[in-house]
Amino acid sequence: MRRANAQLQVDRRATILDAAERCFVRSGFHQTSMQEICAEAGMSAGNLYRYFPSKEALIAGIAERNRAEAAEDFAAVDKASTFFEGLAALARHHLVERNDKITLCVEIMAESRRNEAMAATQHEVKQDIKARLAAMIRSGIARGEVSPHVDVEAIATFLLVIGDGIFWQRSGNPDFDGEKVLPLILSAVHGILTKPSSPRESS
Amino acid sequence: MRRANAQLQVDRRATILDAAERCFVRSGFHQTSMQEICAEAGMSAGNLYRYFPSKEALIAGIAERNRAEAAEDFAAVDKASTFFEGLAALARHHLVERNDKITLCVEIMAESRRNEAMAATQHEVKQDIKARLAAMIRSGIARGEVSPHVDVEAIATFLLVIGDGIFWQRSGNPDFDGEKVLPLILSAVHGILTKPSSPRESS
Repeated sequence: MRRANAQLQVDRRATILDAAERCFVRSGFHQTSMQEICAEAGMSAGNLYRYFPSKEALIAGIAERNRAEAAEDFAAVDKASTFFEGLAALARHHLVERNDKITLCVEIMAESRRNEAMAATQHEVKQDIKARLAAMIRSGIARGEVSPHVDVEAIATFLLVIGDGIFWQRSGNPDFDGEKVLPLILSAVHGILTKPSSPRESS
Repeated sequence: MRRANAQLQVDRRATILDAAERCFVRSGFHQTSMQEICAEAGMSAGNLYRYFPSKEALIAGIAERNRAEAAEDFAAVDKASTFFEGLAALARHHLVERNDKITLCVEIMAESRRNEAMAATQHEVKQDIKARLAAMIRSGIARGEVSPHVDVEAIATFLLVIGDGIFWQRSGNPDFDGEKVLPLILSAVHGILTKPSSPRESS
């Protein structure tokens, strides 16, 4: 009985987070009321507040869930037959295929500019993703596919930069075609990962 | 006399746009009132409205001015002694040095998501910058420094992606150090510009 209750709690949380995501994407973080989320989740306010007492708590919940999903995605790179195949699949998933979360991510990034609590959550998530990117690169080094002399931290930051840039292009530019730039991005990243060092082009 | 008047008009417009930029950066686009901009510019509403009748008109004015500045920046690449030196200086200017405009650009990008008029202006600006990036790459080909076989459009889009990503990192991530990733970005971009083609790493 206790186990069934625990599962019910997990399901309820997932239902609420799904509803909140749809509302935030549709109306934006500011314009969404807790009432709207209750209606979307088909739940009374009293019930919903027991799981998530505020919009900030909902965003933290969404961030936590995204983080868990990201962990699985990165684990898949290690299981691919080569590092670069795994990387290409990861890039395709996040930069071309994964449509649903883009608007939400961009909404969270925008809101983080004026909301300290969200900025802190967002910063943690980005640091977590950066750490995973760095671990992924180190695993590529261990597999002998990535040069052991690369600047792991700088490349992880560069990959984060590309991710943010793609998300903004995808959310804001109707002409943007991820399919067209993906081979180029993979080629550029392959280049810096297999180069023994990062020579400065300037001066 | 007429000439002095024309100059006065130009100066007034610049004063107003400067004031509006400061207000938008400080309070955000939504929270800024036309009254606040009048106060910041030290001008009466009646006077200011003759130049810019709305916040949207102000944003369009800011975008137009940014575009003119961008044109000068790109022209400087052609004047550098080598293409890659010019590119490195341009990248440094926009990705590391230029601090003042970052918050404003990010504010405009965020606002564009829910404001059709601004989205249209923003889209035009981005298309304009992309066209300039493409022209810059073609000029590198003409100078014999860039491979004539590169996919100019795709690389221009990639550069735009990197620019957006850097702006978001700079505005949202207090730990971000552009100085650390700039050599890597230049190395990656050098790689794809001098490669005869963009081989697909995937599949």
